[in-house]
This record gives sequence, C-alpha cells and structure tokens, in this order.
Amino acid sequence: MQTPDIHVLAAGTALPGPALDNAALAARFGLNLAWRQWVDTFIGTDTRHLSIDLETGAQRYTLADLGEQAAERALAAAGLEPEDIDLVVMGTSSPDQLMPATANVIADRLGIDGVSIYQLQSGCTGAVQSLDIAERLLSTGRHRTALVLGGDVSAKHYSVQIDVTKMDPGQMVNGVLFGDGAGACVLSAEPRPGSPVLRHVRVRAVGLGRLPGQVVDYSGMAGPRGDQPLVVEDYKAIEESVPRMAAEMLHEVLGELAWKQDEVDYLLPPQLSGRMTALIAERLALPGAEEITCVRETGNTGNALPFFQLEMLLPRLKDGQRAVGVAIESSKWIKAGFALEAV
Amino acid sequence: MQTPDIHVLAAGTALPGPALDNAALAARFGLNLAWRQWVDTFIGTDTRHLSIDLETGAQRYTLADLGEQAAERALAAAGLEPEDIDLVVMGTSSPDQLMPATANVIADRLGIDGVSIYQLQSGCTGAVQSLDIAERLLSTGRHRTALVLGGDVSAKHYSVQIDVTKMDPGQMVNGVLFGDGAGACVLSAEPRPGSPVLRHVRVRAVGLGRLPGQVVDYSGMAGPRGDQPLVVEDYKAIEESVPRMAAEMLHEVLGELAWKQDEVDYLLPPQLSGRMTALIAERLALPGAEEITCVRETGNTGNALPFFQLEMLLPRLKDGQRAVGVAIESSKWIKAGFALEAV
Repeated sequence: MQTPDIHVLAAGTALPGPALDNAALAARFGLNLAWRQWVDTFIGTDTRHLSIDLETGAQRYTLADLGEQAAERALAAAGLEPEDIDLVVMGTSSPDQLMPATANVIADRLGIDGVSIYQLQSGCTGAVQSLDIAERLLSTGRHRTALVLGGDVSAKHYSVQIDVTKMDPGQMVNGVLFGDGAGACVLSAEPRPGSPVLRHVRVRAVGLGRLPGQVVDYSGMAGPRGDQPLVVEDYKAIEESVPRMAAEMLHEVLGELAWKQDEVDYLLPPQLSGRMTALIAERLALPGAEEITCVRETGNTGNALPFFQLEMLLPRLKDGQRAVGVAIESSKWIKAGFALEAV
Repeated sequence: MQTPDIHVLAAGTALPGPALDNAALAARFGLNLAWRQWVDTFIGTDTRHLSIDLETGAQRYTLADLGEQAAERALAAAGLEPEDIDLVVMGTSSPDQLMPATANVIADRLGIDGVSIYQLQSGCTGAVQSLDIAERLLSTGRHRTALVLGGDVSAKHYSVQIDVTKMDPGQMVNGVLFGDGAGACVLSAEPRPGSPVLRHVRVRAVGLGRLPGQVVDYSGMAGPRGDQPLVVEDYKAIEESVPRMAAEMLHEVLGELAWKQDEVDYLLPPQLSGRMTALIAERLALPGAEEITCVRETGNTGNALPFFQLEMLLPRLKDGQRAVGVAIESSKWIKAGFALEAV
C-alpha cells in the first residue's frame, strides 16, 4: 500500500522563566561546593528552567502556557494559521489537570476547533509516540496537517519546603535532573521547499517482567502520603539499561530503513542528563554523525526534548542529509526512534 | 487509497465488587427518602460498582486490575493469546499513576511485550478516541491485531469522609452518577466468521471559546486545596449541549457513510445517566433502531462505557445489520461516533 510522505515543516519550543544554574539552586537550598561538584560530575546538567517560583513553590507557568507558546512559534515558522491544522497530538506526563486534556486547552487558546485532538500520557518517549500517531493518521489521508506537541512541568511534583540537605542522593538527583518546557512541530502531507521527510517512527514497549524505572504518582482527595515523594527513580537500572536500549533502537531504525551507519549525518540521542547523554552518544558511536544535544542547558524536559533537538536540527539539515533520533523512557521501559531525510 | 477493513473480533468488561444500589448509598451517608426519589427522578441511575471501600475510602481495585480482567475476557472471547496482539491503545481519565502508563502495566500483566502501547488522557469519548487510533494504525498495515482498552476508577477522586448531607446538589450528583469499570475489545485486520467491520470512527473537539463542562483536578506534593472538590461539573451546560452534540455526531456519521436513518439496526447512545441517556435517545430518534444502554446498572463508567455497549451488541448483530455509537465528552466538549456493520 503506497502512502504519502509526511514532512516536518517546522518546530518551536518554549521555556519558563530564566535559566537557573547550579549555583542558584545551591544558594536557594543551602547546598555546598561538594554538592555542586557532585552535580557537575554525576549529572552534568548546567542549567534548567522551572515552571514554579523557586522561593514559594507556586506554579508560575502551566503546561498550557508553555505548549501554547511553543505551538505559536512552530506555526509561525511553518507559515501556517491555526485553521490549517486538522489534527493535534500531544504527549505529556504532567498534564495541568486530568480533565480537560491540556491539548484541548491549548487548541482552544490557539483557535483550533472542530478537529481530532489526542493527548498521550507518556514520559521521555512521548514526543516520538505523538510523532508516530500523527504520522500514521496523516499517512492514511484523512488528515492533512498536524500540530504535534510535547511538554512537561515536572517541577510541580516537588516541594520546595523540604530540607534538601537531608535528602538522600537518589531523591536529590530529581531536583537537578529535570527542567520544564514544551515543544511543538508541524507535520504535513503537503511538502514545503526544504522540508525533510519523516522517514520512520518506531515505538516499542519492552517492560515485560521488569519493575518500572520511574514512577510518578499523584494524589486525589486523600492528598500525598506523608513525606513520601511522588517521583521515584531507579537510577541504577536506568544507567544499566538505557544505553543498551538506545543502541538497540538505533540499529532497529537503521535496519528497517536499510541505512548504513556512515549514512547518518545527525544523531539526536536521548537527553536524560549531560552525563548520561554523553555516555549514550559514545555507545551509539555513529561515525561522521554530528550530535544534537541540549540537555546541559535545558535539563531533562521529558516530552518536550525531541522538539528542542528538532528545532536545532531543521536549519542545519541540507538536501540529501539524514538524521536519526532516539528516546528511551524508563517508566515501564519503552524505546523509541525516528528518522528524517531532507530530499 | 484502498485500506483493509478492520474487524471487531470480541469485547470484554470488568466491574469492581458488588452492585451498590441507591439504598446502600443512602444508608452509608445518612440520606433520606427524598434524596432517593431525587436520584430516581433526576439521575436515573440505579446501581454502580465502586473501586473503593465505601466505609473507609481505601482503594480496593486499581485501574490496572480492572483493565487486566476486561482484556483477558476480550482476548478469550476472540480466541487469541497475548502474543497475537501487536498494538495496545487505552483511554482513561483516571490512570493509576502518571508514570508508568497504566496501559503498560496491564500489558505487562497480560504478557504483551515488544509492541507499541499508547494511553490517551481522555474522558467519555476516550473509548472512541482509542478505537480511532487503533483502527487507523491497523489500516496502514503496520499492525495486525490491536487490544483497545478503556476504563476509569473515578471513585478515588472523592472522599467518603465528607458530610454528604451538607453538600450542594451539584456536587452530590457526582457521587451517584459515576461508576468504576473497564472494558476492552480486539480489533483486527484479519476477519473472523461473523466479526463486524468497524466502518467509521470520528472524533471532533468543538470546545472553541467554551468553558469546560467537566474539570477533574489532581494534586502534587501540595495536596488538595482544602475542601475544594477535585471534580467539578457544569450540569446545566451539559444538559443543554450534550443532546444537540449527540444528534450532530449521529448525523455526521450517517452522512459520511451515506446510511439512511432507517438503515440503522442498533443505536449505542451516550451513557451520562439513566435520565440523560433517555433524553438523548429520544432526541436521536432512529426509527427501527434498538437502543443498547447499560448506564442504569453500571453508572457512568467514562472511558469503559462503549465497551459495555459493544459487549451487549456483538452477540445480537446479525449479517447485514448496522450499529452506530455516539459518545460526548463535556470536559472541553468533544463529540465522537463510530459505526459497525456485520457483513
């Protein structure tokens, strides 16, 4: 069955407030130089942007705020109006509310109406999950132009009132690892001059019999259970598994496209942290591929990250060039990949 | 572009614990006969099943528990094994956790691995949203057999410690309107003898400039804001809008299929409450169509409901017969419809 090529017309992103560096976090939470050295060595994230006020913990930016801004930028870069969009797909692990879906709120603010809008509950592979569904729905010909979104405001899962100096390192990691942000891109069955083709998207859940590597809980009327954190990660399992899973997905995508390793011009590796991304990129080792990475500046923005990478990639990608992106989600162990080609 | 027909092989459902009637709720919360008459007249829901213990509020069944059971029943009815499934799509407004997605937990319990798994954050149209995505992904030929799930455990959003006799009626409605449950069906590009074809699925968000009709909030580390309810509904807007929206979607589906009103054998109307469903079915007024309704017994089980209707429909649908289902979501105003034909 012949399906039309789906093109990436443009990408846009949004970050809340100013960049917060490790010195600012250390000053706010009374952490010493040893802590800053630990962050530099073991996390490798220099700055992040947070949706909350660091002093009070109050939420200053919602996911809808950030998603709206990212979508506006992507639409403007694509030269499209909201009425050109006939499909919206968004991924997030931190919706503003359980109902209505944040994607519908963003669509309302943008003036998009009367179309199919889908919001995925997803983690670090959510952007690729959203690309997958949008690409498939466009390829059936029922839709023409999709706005694909991803974003997270993970900071709201944390309390700024906690004495960070007494946290165990496993918990403390979360406070420096994650950043908030949103991203968007426009996919279309109608090409523009220079718009690359989304050649392949692959999402594969591989968590059979494995405990989750990341759990994010929420509370109903009962409220949180005492001091129990809402976010728990198994960093040992993540460090062990993610580089291997990333390599598997990269080779799966290359194999399915029959692309050779030296035919990839740009690599968009998973963006867990500065240190993990460096380890993963080393493992993936594509000769001649330039790495597109932003995690040292943005922190791990979850569902937003591949859009930041796309925004960096698109102006660089020249005719005939190829790019492969990989994202790994540790929640219940999901590997995802995608490939672009400028034609 | 010719795409293969996608067939509904089987459906299965699950309800938590015993049926709770209005007398049982009245006895638990100290409500009088006038209250029971009000429920009979204005809600029209006789029984529901709850995932929580009515005495303590403790959660006895998770969404994963119910989804696993419904999926097992659907797979057994389809005569399939978990390894036959190469796509899972699930809709819910009340996931067990934000991460991992409950769909991935259910897949793990069933023994489904290595496939694409997507979970939508959705309300009363979530089952149709999931059918839509699964049908489209199957129709591109990349997947062969999908497990489609929907479910909600809304009871966890409520406190059983509240003095219900002092609640305003608008809030009290939620306590009798909703029930918990999960449903599943199996879609396949490979027909079975007698398996109807999913002829059409349509989801359309129409909330431009409208306030949400339903809001479901959740809390992070800060906990709920005092006594503010997590669930708020605008019943006046719902009563005004939903019958009209249901009629619009019914006629849209019929129009797109070029089916005449008297060519529909079964109608699966929205299942808001016994009273609302009766009003809507009257408004839809399909001559000769038999109504498939369960809301009086199950309550409004949200993302699960169309699967309960499908489970009732499938054994009745004879060769050449047609069925149309409609679901309306008041969150940010979404209308959805689907059509089946036994061939």
